[in-house]
Amino acid sequence: MSRFTLEEYAHRLARTRDAMQARQIEVLLITSPENMNYLTGYDAWSFYTHQMAIVALDREPIWIGRGIDVPCATATSYLQPSDVIGYPDEYVQSSERHPMEFIAAELERRGLGSRVLGVEMDNYYFTARCFHKLQASLPRCTFKDASGLVNWVRIIKSEAEVELIRQAGVIADRAMTTAVETITPAIRQCDLAARIMQAQITGTEAYGGAVPGGLVMGIGAKAAAPHLSWTDDPVGSDVVANIELGGCRARYHAGLARSVYLGNPPGQLRELAAIVRDGLETVFASVAPGRTCAQLEEAWRGVISRFGLIKPSRIGYSIGLGYPPDWGEHTASLRPGDATELQPNMTFHVILGMWQGALSFVLSETILVTETGHESFSRMPRELFVVS
Amino acid sequence: MSRFTLEEYAHRLARTRDAMQARQIEVLLITSPENMNYLTGYDAWSFYTHQMAIVALDREPIWIGRGIDVPCATATSYLQPSDVIGYPDEYVQSSERHPMEFIAAELERRGLGSRVLGVEMDNYYFTARCFHKLQASLPRCTFKDASGLVNWVRIIKSEAEVELIRQAGVIADRAMTTAVETITPAIRQCDLAARIMQAQITGTEAYGGAVPGGLVMGIGAKAAAPHLSWTDDPVGSDVVANIELGGCRARYHAGLARSVYLGNPPGQLRELAAIVRDGLETVFASVAPGRTCAQLEEAWRGVISRFGLIKPSRIGYSIGLGYPPDWGEHTASLRPGDATELQPNMTFHVILGMWQGALSFVLSETILVTETGHESFSRMPRELFVVS
Repeated sequence: MSRFTLEEYAHRLARTRDAMQARQIEVLLITSPENMNYLTGYDAWSFYTHQMAIVALDREPIWIGRGIDVPCATATSYLQPSDVIGYPDEYVQSSERHPMEFIAAELERRGLGSRVLGVEMDNYYFTARCFHKLQASLPRCTFKDASGLVNWVRIIKSEAEVELIRQAGVIADRAMTTAVETITPAIRQCDLAARIMQAQITGTEAYGGAVPGGLVMGIGAKAAAPHLSWTDDPVGSDVVANIELGGCRARYHAGLARSVYLGNPPGQLRELAAIVRDGLETVFASVAPGRTCAQLEEAWRGVISRFGLIKPSRIGYSIGLGYPPDWGEHTASLRPGDATELQPNMTFHVILGMWQGALSFVLSETILVTETGHESFSRMPRELFVVS
Repeated sequence: MSRFTLEEYAHRLARTRDAMQARQIEVLLITSPENMNYLTGYDAWSFYTHQMAIVALDREPIWIGRGIDVPCATATSYLQPSDVIGYPDEYVQSSERHPMEFIAAELERRGLGSRVLGVEMDNYYFTARCFHKLQASLPRCTFKDASGLVNWVRIIKSEAEVELIRQAGVIADRAMTTAVETITPAIRQCDLAARIMQAQITGTEAYGGAVPGGLVMGIGAKAAAPHLSWTDDPVGSDVVANIELGGCRARYHAGLARSVYLGNPPGQLRELAAIVRDGLETVFASVAPGRTCAQLEEAWRGVISRFGLIKPSRIGYSIGLGYPPDWGEHTASLRPGDATELQPNMTFHVILGMWQGALSFVLSETILVTETGHESFSRMPRELFVVS
C-alpha cells in the first residue's frame, strides 16, 4: 500500500510529464531511490542493486528490479502487478551480465526501443556503466540528460508532504533534546550517538521515525570537521560538540544542528553563537515568496561581515525525501548566484556551520516557505547549549 | 589519525598497484567511499558530494573533495596535508560546474594529464556525468574500466580487519539478542528497530559500533519482502518476523539474520527452519581453501532439493568494509557459476533467505575462511526463535 493517495501520485506524474514534454523526453528512466519512491511509492533498502522506475508519457509507470525485491515493490507501491518486473538473480553484481541489459530488453519488448529517453546522468546509482550498457543495448533510442528533472518537481511540497516534514521536525527536536540531556564529558561518543539514533527511529507516540540520511558530530579537536561520525572516545571536557542530525519520517527529513559546550564556554564562542543566531533570524525574516536563494545568503553575509566573519560554503539547500547518504534535494542552494525564487511549500535546511578550528559552531533549522514568510519546523532554543 | 598502521596501508597500496599494473593502469581514480577509506583511511559522511582518491603507480595517494571536508580528510587519513585538496563550494551540486572538471585540472597540474586512467565504471558515485566530464576535460588520457579492482584486493582481509569483523560479529549478536528480547506482538515495529539500532551503535563496553549498511525486517504479510524497513504498526500475533541486521565496527560488517515467530509456529515453518539450519551447517562444513563459491551453493542445493525447495537467489557474498546502503563487496557470490576459490581470510555473509509467502524464514551468519575450514562470527542459536 502506497503512502500517499493515488490522486497525489497522479499529480506528481502529471508535473513530471510536463517537465518531460518541455525537454522533449518521451520516456524517463529513474534510478535514484528517492525519485523512484516519489513517483511510484516504492520504498525498499534495495538500492545497492540496479533498479529503475520507468515513466512514459503514454502509459502507467513500470518498476524493474531484482527478482527478490518484487514483493517489496508490490508491498509499497501503487503499481499494477503486471508493471512490476523482476530480473533473475544472476544479473546481481555479475561481471558477465548487467541489469541494464535486462531493462533494455524489457523496454524493447514494450515497444519503447526507439523513443527519446531521459536518464539521470548525475544521480548516484546511475553509474557510467549503466549508461554505456543502455546506449549499447538500445541503439535506436535517443538519450537526453534528465538529471534533476524529478528533483525540481519535488521542490514544491504537497500538504501531505509538508505534514510529514513537520513530523520529522518534531522527531528532530526530540533527538536533539535527547542529545543535550544525554551528553556529558564522560559519555562515549558512540553511546551518545546510539541514544540519538534510538530517539530518531522511535519517533513519537503518534508516529515513528526512520534511519535519517546522516548523523554527524564534530567534537573537540575535530569540531571543524563537518561530516565525521563518532568514535569510542569520551566526549571530553572544555570542548564544543557540533551535532547535525535529521529527523526522518517516511523518508522525509527535517535537518537540525546545534552545538553543546562541555564546560564554561570561552567568550569568543558565546559571541560567535550570538552572531550566528542573529544571522539565522535575519535569514528567516527575509524569507518570502519571490525572494531568491541568493538574497537569503546575502542577508546572512550582511550580518556576519560586520564582524569580519566569512563562511565559504552554502548556507542551505532544498530538503525533503531522501535516503542515506543524503537528505538534500540537489536543486536550489542558498548561495551567491542561485536565482531560484522562493515559492510557498518549498522547504529548506538552513545550516549555518562555522567550521573554523577550535572556534567552531553550528546552528540549523528546517523551514517551510509560506504565503507570507516562513514556518520553522523546530522549537529548540537557538543557543549554544552548555553542559558542565 | 588513520585506523590501521601505515604498514597496512602500504601493503594495501602495493597490492592495488600490482592489480593496476596487471591491467596496465597508471593512475586509479577511486570514487566509492569504501575503497577511498581502504586506501587512504578517509572516513566521512561526505559521499553525497563528488570526491575522489587518486592512486598513481609512482607517487603518494591524493584526496580531492569538497573544501569543507578537508578537515575530515586530515582527521581520518594518513595523507600529507599537501595531498589533501579541497574544491570550492560553488562546485557542489551545481548545474554550471562539476567537481570532475576541478579534479581533471588538478590531474593536469600534477602532470597526470596524459596517463592511462582507471575509473570505477560501475560503482555508485561514479555517475555517467562524472565519466563524461573527465573524458571531456582530459582528452589526452586513456580510460580503462577499473570496476571492482580495489574490491577484489579487499577480498582477502588482514588480521586487523578480521579482528574488526569479529568485533562486528559480537555487536551483531548483541543487536539480535536485543531484538529477540524486545519483540512482542504489541511493540511498534519502529520501537523494535530503535532498540536494535541503539544496540548496534552502542556496541560493547570495549568498543562501539557504527551505522550499518542496512537494517531490514519483513513481518507478517510482508515476510516475503526481504528489504523493507519498519512501519509504525505493532508486530502482531501469529506472524513471523524476519530480521536482517549488520553489526558494524569501524565500517566493517558482520551480517546476521534470524526469524522470530510471535505465537505458536506452524509445523511447516518449524520444518523449514530445520531444513535451512541443516543447509547452513552443510555449507559451513564445506568451507575450505580451494573450494569454489559455486560448490558451497551446490552443497546447499543438495540439502534443500531433497525437500523440493528452491532458492532462486544467491546464498551469500563477500562482506567487509562498507557504507549504507550496502555491506557486500560486489565481488564473489555464492551461486552457480561463481568459480572464485576460497582462500584463508576471506569473509562471507552466508544468507539463507527463504522468501516464499507467509512461509518465509531467514538464517544467516558471517564466516571467516580459515586454513582448515571456517570460523563463524556469531554465537546465536541457529533456530526459529519463538516469543509468545
